[in-house]
Amino acid sequence: MSDSTDETMTTTRRGFGSDNHAGVHPAVLEAIAQANVGHVEAYGNDAFTEYAHAVLRRHVGEDAQISFTFNGTGANVVALGTLCKPWESVICPATAHINTDECGAPEHIANIKLVPVDTPDGKLTPELARPHLVGFDFEHHAQPRVISISNVTELGGVYTQAEMRALADLAHEHGMFLHVDGARICNAAEVLGVQLRALTEGAGVDALSLGGTKNGMLAGEAVVLFGDARSEYLPYVRKQSGQLSSKMRFVSAQFIAMFDGDLWLRCAGHANAMAARLAAGTREAGIEISRPVDANEVFAILPREITPALIERFRFYVWDETRNEVRWVCSWDTAEEDVDALVDALRAAGADAS
Amino acid sequence: MSDSTDETMTTTRRGFGSDNHAGVHPAVLEAIAQANVGHVEAYGNDAFTEYAHAVLRRHVGEDAQISFTFNGTGANVVALGTLCKPWESVICPATAHINTDECGAPEHIANIKLVPVDTPDGKLTPELARPHLVGFDFEHHAQPRVISISNVTELGGVYTQAEMRALADLAHEHGMFLHVDGARICNAAEVLGVQLRALTEGAGVDALSLGGTKNGMLAGEAVVLFGDARSEYLPYVRKQSGQLSSKMRFVSAQFIAMFDGDLWLRCAGHANAMAARLAAGTREAGIEISRPVDANEVFAILPREITPALIERFRFYVWDETRNEVRWVCSWDTAEEDVDALVDALRAAGADAS
Amino acid sequence: MSDSTDETMTTTRRGFGSDNHAGVHPAVLEAIAQANVGHVEAYGNDAFTEYAHAVLRRHVGEDAQISFTFNGTGANVVALGTLCKPWESVICPATAHINTDECGAPEHIANIKLVPVDTPDGKLTPELARPHLVGFDFEHHAQPRVISISNVTELGGVYTQAEMRALADLAHEHGMFLHVDGARICNAAEVLGVQLRALTEGAGVDALSLGGTKNGMLAGEAVVLFGDARSEYLPYVRKQSGQLSSKMRFVSAQFIAMFDGDLWLRCAGHANAMAARLAAGTREAGIEISRPVDANEVFAILPREITPALIERFRFYVWDETRNEVRWVCSWDTAEEDVDALVDALRAAGADAS
Amino acid sequence: MSDSTDETMTTTRRGFGSDNHAGVHPAVLEAIAQANVGHVEAYGNDAFTEYAHAVLRRHVGEDAQISFTFNGTGANVVALGTLCKPWESVICPATAHINTDECGAPEHIANIKLVPVDTPDGKLTPELARPHLVGFDFEHHAQPRVISISNVTELGGVYTQAEMRALADLAHEHGMFLHVDGARICNAAEVLGVQLRALTEGAGVDALSLGGTKNGMLAGEAVVLFGDARSEYLPYVRKQSGQLSSKMRFVSAQFIAMFDGDLWLRCAGHANAMAARLAAGTREAGIEISRPVDANEVFAILPREITPALIERFRFYVWDETRNEVRWVCSWDTAEEDVDALVDALRAAGADAS
Repeated sequence: MSDSTDETMTTTRRGFGSDNHAGVHPAVLEAIAQANVGHVEAYGNDAFTEYAHAVLRRHVGEDAQISFTFNGTGANVVALGTLCKPWESVICPATAHINTDECGAPEHIANIKLVPVDTPDGKLTPELARPHLVGFDFEHHAQPRVISISNVTELGGVYTQAEMRALADLAHEHGMFLHVDGARICNAAEVLGVQLRALTEGAGVDALSLGGTKNGMLAGEAVVLFGDARSEYLPYVRKQSGQLSSKMRFVSAQFIAMFDGDLWLRCAGHANAMAARLAAGTREAGIEISRPVDANEVFAILPREITPALIERFRFYVWDETRNEVRWVCSWDTAEEDVDALVDALRAAGADAS
Repeated sequence: MSDSTDETMTTTRRGFGSDNHAGVHPAVLEAIAQANVGHVEAYGNDAFTEYAHAVLRRHVGEDAQISFTFNGTGANVVALGTLCKPWESVICPATAHINTDECGAPEHIANIKLVPVDTPDGKLTPELARPHLVGFDFEHHAQPRVISISNVTELGGVYTQAEMRALADLAHEHGMFLHVDGARICNAAEVLGVQLRALTEGAGVDALSLGGTKNGMLAGEAVVLFGDARSEYLPYVRKQSGQLSSKMRFVSAQFIAMFDGDLWLRCAGHANAMAARLAAGTREAGIEISRPVDANEVFAILPREITPALIERFRFYVWDETRNEVRWVCSWDTAEEDVDALVDALRAAGADAS
Repeated sequence: MSDSTDETMTTTRRGFGSDNHAGVHPAVLEAIAQANVGHVEAYGNDAFTEYAHAVLRRHVGEDAQISFTFNGTGANVVALGTLCKPWESVICPATAHINTDECGAPEHIANIKLVPVDTPDGKLTPELARPHLVGFDFEHHAQPRVISISNVTELGGVYTQAEMRALADLAHEHGMFLHVDGARICNAAEVLGVQLRALTEGAGVDALSLGGTKNGMLAGEAVVLFGDARSEYLPYVRKQSGQLSSKMRFVSAQFIAMFDGDLWLRCAGHANAMAARLAAGTREAGIEISRPVDANEVFAILPREITPALIERFRFYVWDETRNEVRWVCSWDTAEEDVDALVDALRAAGADAS
Repeated sequence: MSDSTDETMTTTRRGFGSDNHAGVHPAVLEAIAQANVGHVEAYGNDAFTEYAHAVLRRHVGEDAQISFTFNGTGANVVALGTLCKPWESVICPATAHINTDECGAPEHIANIKLVPVDTPDGKLTPELARPHLVGFDFEHHAQPRVISISNVTELGGVYTQAEMRALADLAHEHGMFLHVDGARICNAAEVLGVQLRALTEGAGVDALSLGGTKNGMLAGEAVVLFGDARSEYLPYVRKQSGQLSSKMRFVSAQFIAMFDGDLWLRCAGHANAMAARLAAGTREAGIEISRPVDANEVFAILPREITPALIERFRFYVWDETRNEVRWVCSWDTAEEDVDALVDALRAAGADAS
């Protein structure tokens, strides 16, 4: 690599843009390196994958069916494509990642119809979902089959077990499934102080997209199916969806690194703590926090005049242009000094302005 | 990780099952580790990816459009989905990976119709393809849009530049594109002694699925589009197909490791050389080689009685049960002693039998 | 046919369930019979179809591209499948037929993503649509490509030319198309007192699903594309969507019967007039009309206790169970005495209740 | 309609282009007219449809599940889409209508992968099909689920009951279904002298696309499912595929006209007899018949020099340009004098040539 390029590529200051701007936890890289020994069968027929599945089942329940994918869109479409037939529909908040950020993959790859529901805060409730559970056994209407929520939500909120259970009960009353897009499920579990099992089978969840990448892995997510949602079709859906890794052991090694001990919890806990610290500092700096800070994301309303310089220095996105709401995401590797520097800058900007 | 599992997972003897049974070249892992610094933007908007694209363009041509995917099925469906509209078709050998080993992903994810053509040896020729280039402008017939071949083929053969050019000319005469599934294109280039450019733009190729994983990478392939095949639609097709990596820098770093120097060539050359050594030894052992050994794969007809023990020791697959034809694949990490051990075993089995 | 079945099938009292409960206008049947002479080429390559296209172009504009389909779902999916690529989206009212009553056909057959928008009355406005025209050139977001409205709406409302033009302008500002589901466009044109041209090209419409069946035809709808929306792909989309009739002359003959003279207008006008008569009588009977009666549909809030007997006698559907809102649809064959009988029954029920 | 157009449209000389160039049998039109009384529920919830289903069940078996579609492509995709999941495949002759003449609808609308098999004469046999029944339970391979044949074949051949039974047995041994594209199944039954039941359930058939249009109907086909192939999903597949007619009674009336008596048999028998007469005359004229004349189609090798004038006068298609093979199709309305005129012309052309 040429020197100049090398220079460019290593000026990689930590920011608050997203938890997928962060790199890989060293223990995860180390696990990948340790798995790099000799030959093993491809496509998951290897001891690493068998062990990784067993490790995950300790967290989510011994009867769970587990299948790894490359990324979150992959996990979502494989989960939904396994749960649904092509004339079935998925009720989700209008803000859901599957609705706004997957370029139509759920409709196109998982063959489903999405039924987006407007919510005040990105969280679905039984009251909001119920009016859309209609048209059963009516051939003109795509058949409601899944309620899908994100926990953590796309707006930084966390569903409690009780909130999830209420949605699961509603789904089950109608012969439907509850799916959770858990790109940040580890953050939710940590902040609630519960095991993953409590947020999945324990809350009536039928299918989970379990996120690894945003929590410190290189690339890897898991589809986890419970009870009647388990399916002999899952392998075909994953393969057809292009989500079957040939050198699977390196995905599995990442999951082992994360979940054989408590690395998943420490990474998530750290990110959550950094967000709490940032929220506190932001409030002290007199900046309005615009949404509950339940996990590792902070939404705030910034004065417009101070925004560009802050973005330049701390790298983050404007979430809602209309009111200049910004989103800050903390990661497994966000340092206290990163947070403090941002808070200091907010304070300084405030002082300048006043 | 528990000791017993650890033991299981490290009994990972090298075999001849597939080049995706091999691990990752150390230089690739090292590049991943070096890229693991700080934060960069996700989804490929980073300097690593920019540099990796530039590196690859040095190999395939400065005007090429490049887009990374997770795996080979992903590269194929993204390439074909970009080239074709939903009522268009792709002519390919019946043995093509896209036809036999992707569980319907091309039809389902790339929205195309496949038109498989029987071939004697897995290689398409203009003569074989031409009868299928019919029905143009006829609304009842899926419109032929792409000829797709694999180089190296699924049967271990290599198309020469002239053979590819003949197919490209045929395609272009009909307003069609030539796509190459290049999961092992590096092996083909090495054995032909040409640059990748010569096997792509230089041979009239419009679209290439450029393989990295089988040649020593962890997980990463590239869609490469040339000339009129380049498309503003590519990013949407990739995203919708679930093939956009969030932490893209780690895919890019692998490509940089492979292609900034000549690692791609050395890995491919080594695998090819090992296959040649194996083929020679096999013939000397009196075993019939059943197909031309053009690159890193050897097909042979084994006596049935010696097969199970050999599979147990050297891990490989029976390709054609009807005549007990087996396939041996050599990898970047196949050692001379691995080859010699297999040859010795073939000799010994032969001696026992006689 | 056996006598008893014959009896069952001829107790076919006219009701208010839907305009597709009505039969075929005699002039349409007569045209079918007249077209039943000798042999003509299949699939629309016949003089009937050529003439029918010419007839329709007199109504909608000489440059329009016209293509017949079997039914309304067919017309909608062929129109949208021609206008959109698989990663593009269609913004529509949440109440749209394409969203609620086509069992996912738009997503599945036309390969689009639907973006349903909540509206107070089933009518989209620029204000309601604008917040959904986002994410352009952002690969994560399905690309907005079409605004689709129904005129007449599913709630019986009619968009004026000005209202349509405003939506067309919004669409065109964003490089998008305006599509109109015109299952009842003839009713809308009649009530507005304008030509179809005024409600299509004249209002900036790019694509129309032109309904015939509900207005007195046996089975037949037309996809009509204007200006830049016209497409060489239309024939392939129609064929692949299963909407190409082999004995097309019999679809074409129906359109000739309807549109070579003013039958379309008389049928629509009669249905509209009957709805107006019904609305007036309903109001006089002291029953609340719950939505504007713009065309041939009347929505009313019935006392629950009188509903079952009325449904038994006059055959109609409860539209909204929560407030016992019912829908009455008038057809080309609704007789004044049918309306008067219903009004009398409403009056009698009211008198009984008071 | 203007006079000149009227003139054009009535110069509709009978020819031999296709049985869908013919019009509608008068009894079918009469049945449509008789069904045009009052209002009935839409979408098949009417007495006509109930009766039509009962009538058809008398022919194919009392337990059959029946569902009408608009056209043959529709029947095929609804049948296959009901039988298969999106990762399953359908083995068919390469010449199958579903493979060559439906513009990718089976792949696109029914979500299947087609596995076309080369045949000498358009007829699949167990020997030809068996090599493609592979890859079961292997996630990389689309799972074989259906064997699909056409009876009558696209090359005019008829499968006997024994031939069908052999394929059904093969399918069932592998847990698969046998589907018959019966666009001309009535012609096959008539020539074999058996009931439709003998060619469906009696031969082990699981799913039938039962053709009506080519045999004298206006537009109408039926999906017929037997035994374990019956499915609660059929209504959704039909609706989503755009094949649910709103004014269904008019499709049903056609089936009643055809199948309540023996009209189906008389129409098919007449077409078959005309083809036999044409074949005999053609042979006598010294013209080579190129394929067995099993039903209502005759294939012949014409001298090139006499072809254009014959096509001009008798309207038919060149089937295979390479050897100037033409196809003549006889219809329910082909007159003996039509056949004799063609034979005379062949004789005269032959005399001129010699």
